[in-house]
Amino acid sequence: MTESFSKIAARYEVILFDAYGVLKNSGGVMPGVLDVLTRFADTGKRMYVVTNDSSRSPEVMARTYEHPKHGSLIGADHHVTSGLLAAEFLRSKVRSGRVAYLGKPSAAYYIESAGLEPVPVSQCAPDAEVRALVLLDDEGFDWQNDLNRALNLLRAQNIPVVVANADPTYPVDTHNVSIAVGSLGDLLERIVHKRFIRFGKPDALMYAYAYAHACMQDASLDKRKVLMVGDTLDTDILGGNKFGIDTVLVLSGNTRRETALREIESTGIIPDYVCESILD
Amino acid sequence: MTESFSKIAARYEVILFDAYGVLKNSGGVMPGVLDVLTRFADTGKRMYVVTNDSSRSPEVMARTYEHPKHGSLIGADHHVTSGLLAAEFLRSKVRSGRVAYLGKPSAAYYIESAGLEPVPVSQCAPDAEVRALVLLDDEGFDWQNDLNRALNLLRAQNIPVVVANADPTYPVDTHNVSIAVGSLGDLLERIVHKRFIRFGKPDALMYAYAYAHACMQDASLDKRKVLMVGDTLDTDILGGNKFGIDTVLVLSGNTRRETALREIESTGIIPDYVCESILD
Amino acid sequence: MTESFSKIAARYEVILFDAYGVLKNSGGVMPGVLDVLTRFADTGKRMYVVTNDSSRSPEVMARTYEHPKHGSLIGADHHVTSGLLAAEFLRSKVRSGRVAYLGKPSAAYYIESAGLEPVPVSQCAPDAEVRALVLLDDEGFDWQNDLNRALNLLRAQNIPVVVANADPTYPVDTHNVSIAVGSLGDLLERIVHKRFIRFGKPDALMYAYAYAHACMQDASLDKRKVLMVGDTLDTDILGGNKFGIDTVLVLSGNTRRETALREIESTGIIPDYVCESILD
Amino acid sequence: MTESFSKIAARYEVILFDAYGVLKNSGGVMPGVLDVLTRFADTGKRMYVVTNDSSRSPEVMARTYEHPKHGSLIGADHHVTSGLLAAEFLRSKVRSGRVAYLGKPSAAYYIESAGLEPVPVSQCAPDAEVRALVLLDDEGFDWQNDLNRALNLLRAQNIPVVVANADPTYPVDTHNVSIAVGSLGDLLERIVHKRFIRFGKPDALMYAYAYAHACMQDASLDKRKVLMVGDTLDTDILGGNKFGIDTVLVLSGNTRRETALREIESTGIIPDYVCESILD
Repeated sequence: MTESFSKIAARYEVILFDAYGVLKNSGGVMPGVLDVLTRFADTGKRMYVVTNDSSRSPEVMARTYEHPKHGSLIGADHHVTSGLLAAEFLRSKVRSGRVAYLGKPSAAYYIESAGLEPVPVSQCAPDAEVRALVLLDDEGFDWQNDLNRALNLLRAQNIPVVVANADPTYPVDTHNVSIAVGSLGDLLERIVHKRFIRFGKPDALMYAYAYAHACMQDASLDKRKVLMVGDTLDTDILGGNKFGIDTVLVLSGNTRRETALREIESTGIIPDYVCESILD
Repeated sequence: MTESFSKIAARYEVILFDAYGVLKNSGGVMPGVLDVLTRFADTGKRMYVVTNDSSRSPEVMARTYEHPKHGSLIGADHHVTSGLLAAEFLRSKVRSGRVAYLGKPSAAYYIESAGLEPVPVSQCAPDAEVRALVLLDDEGFDWQNDLNRALNLLRAQNIPVVVANADPTYPVDTHNVSIAVGSLGDLLERIVHKRFIRFGKPDALMYAYAYAHACMQDASLDKRKVLMVGDTLDTDILGGNKFGIDTVLVLSGNTRRETALREIESTGIIPDYVCESILD
Repeated sequence: MTESFSKIAARYEVILFDAYGVLKNSGGVMPGVLDVLTRFADTGKRMYVVTNDSSRSPEVMARTYEHPKHGSLIGADHHVTSGLLAAEFLRSKVRSGRVAYLGKPSAAYYIESAGLEPVPVSQCAPDAEVRALVLLDDEGFDWQNDLNRALNLLRAQNIPVVVANADPTYPVDTHNVSIAVGSLGDLLERIVHKRFIRFGKPDALMYAYAYAHACMQDASLDKRKVLMVGDTLDTDILGGNKFGIDTVLVLSGNTRRETALREIESTGIIPDYVCESILD
Repeated sequence: MTESFSKIAARYEVILFDAYGVLKNSGGVMPGVLDVLTRFADTGKRMYVVTNDSSRSPEVMARTYEHPKHGSLIGADHHVTSGLLAAEFLRSKVRSGRVAYLGKPSAAYYIESAGLEPVPVSQCAPDAEVRALVLLDDEGFDWQNDLNRALNLLRAQNIPVVVANADPTYPVDTHNVSIAVGSLGDLLERIVHKRFIRFGKPDALMYAYAYAHACMQDASLDKRKVLMVGDTLDTDILGGNKFGIDTVLVLSGNTRRETALREIESTGIIPDYVCESILD
């Protein structure tokens, strides 16, 4: 059922990778991945990471793909994170002032990078002067206290709410997952009945952003020469399909070999290819 | 727009009260309420509390309505709690063994009363031998740790999940609300894509239970002689309407005078009467 | 994996049957079913049909179970239909006047039986004088015209909306299904953002109604002596479980042998028994 | 509360207009609109129509904005329709073969323009050889027959489903609305539990497409010089906000003066400006 990833990749000029489950896992970058990326770089492929992880800056993420010999394989400017799109929203629509957030202090990078002042929700009374609320990450705060604080903030003030990572869960080891900030956003949104602004796959804006960046270097780039590689049907593959680019589902992460076909059938999300991993 | 509650109540034999926002608030039983209940008791009305609160036993709840002179006005056996229905489910369907729960230790009463052994989720590994998971209350556990534990328990085992309180939020003071265990149940249910079993208003089973109890004392009781009194449209009133009994919305709790008519219009949940409070 | 239905049934006093997929299919009553029902009747079991079909009256439905020799096996008064509960709602809450409906003329029986005057939606202008809207059946009207008419009626007037059959689809032959009126109710409800009142399994009120009827003949009836038999997990089995009675999933209808276990696993709706059919 | 649209517009280089409720209504182009557009054209503003209407081709739509003297004011190539994005999806992902559709024959333009062969669902048996299903428009087919046909097609085959217009309803006159194809898509999607691919506002891809087109003429175009004008909060304004451009809510269509502020408050969708109409 699966095909060779290297044969498929040979037909494309630009490759977009999901990070977690494709390039790395809880143990860091997966064995053999840096060599594959090096080979692709050598043959002139342009590579991007397209990720819903908004807990750290692109600069910090890019360090993961530094080859001991060949240096940086996917640089910070080739990382498209949902946090980056959230930051662009804040920069263009909120513009100035204080912004409340849920997440680790390192995630506040995205608020600062938009020229705004991050304030943890734990320091926000319902009448705090803030211009927006941003949900960045599931860690770094007390869920019970701070979700209740966020709720009452949103009941007292009509401010835009940004969810910088739409994922419902993320894997923590081979058996267990953790509730991600996307689910905490759903929790609040259903209670306050307001429309939150979500960034991240499967939203096609992530792919449009990466494609626009790639086009800046090669204005004649054909979408058919762009490939999305991911381990999750309803983010990576759904979004890539919608944006109109070819998609590869790899079985090295979220989606298990035993259930992949059944999941494709039951969700109706159909990747163009299925591969064991990018090492294949 | 509002009518006199005492005039309305005069036409009914059995009155079902929601507790919070109708009889009591965060400061305890509201001033004047015990006198009203005494008057009703004197005129032979039978009264029930029908509540989604599963954090304490009916015995503990009934103490709230002890009049200094006249003694107990609404006894434990006239308290229909969502926890009671959950306990009946556990007794008839789970029958024996250990049951994992989220909530305060006092809420575990409902598991014990069904002859089962309560185990806090914090003590449950994903492979723990438990026969069901019950969400009782939003307090008494660490949200981040224990919601993630509950999630991985449900991913590892196919056991029934009971949500003993379907409310999304509850008021903590005149301005602020807290996220209730019903919303935490929604959060988990959407992630695991399983069907949880919910008890509590607006589910008509709560009303059927109270009505059946009232019929045991008077087999000829007509539903048209039963009145539901509540402060919340989408639990108290929706459920009472569906069960086919008359409903009174009081403005002493969740629903504010300024927005009551608009909420009735926008939700389509139409009470038979609107009253300021039961003191009126 | 499956067990013998006759051995299981022997342990119960009252048996509740879903009709479609259990007792009959598109070709009428299934071969052998009348003999099984006769045998149960002979051994003193009390039997009920508990069905979401609101397209015909209990009297018409009961004719299906007339044995050529033994006469009526499950009488009209032993048919609990979602339409019956809808009629009870109309009788107690709407009381008098005209009621708009979607469905076949034969379904209007339930409105008439509540002493109200049925008016097809096709004859209702947005300002028509009607006291409620009832969705009874997917047939007997022009979907495009009349769903749009119903929508504008609900935008113009704040009246209760009753969905007398909560099923999303129903089977028409071994391969194909039809969209049921429950889905049409969902369609309208999401557009108008109002809360409709739904009757029918999995709502436990259906089971409470049947149980109350059975108790009238035998006040000491124990719930553990009542068995629900159905072919659909998320109506028959979910509702029976919630009501606290034992449940049998039969594989003679909606749920196929090949996928039954996987569906039990993925939905978390766990029947007490699985049987090939009631003939087994 | 409202501001002058002409003063606001003066500060932008590119203006994106929703069509229905902003430029035209059921009676055609609104009086005075062509003069306003002429004035904008004279001052060098670039104008686009960004619409979820997929019932006709951009060429046909553009004729609406032909000024008797000044000729075409918003040309076909300045019309971004959700059908256009659907067509791009079909071209890049489906590529060849037959595509089933729901809608008027004129809507099939979008399938043909992608080099594919449109087949009305009424002519599709469940085993028909089709590569995708596209929901284009709510007219031109028999709802009951063809929605049921579409449903059984999707149960029999795992093919991508595209909804080319995500709107739930559209206005037909000052009082009444019609159910749009977006709601019919929701109906089917919830039944088959598959993920459909939706195009149209509020999806930010619509805005990205218009912005990319505008950048082709002026690569230095700043997003802050782009303005979205719409009459609907949860499509026009939500999507424009998310894409990071300024937004104007006009009160000449879906959103009424009396309820505008309350809707902004209750949805949390906050336009940068509110204007009576573009004539103001």
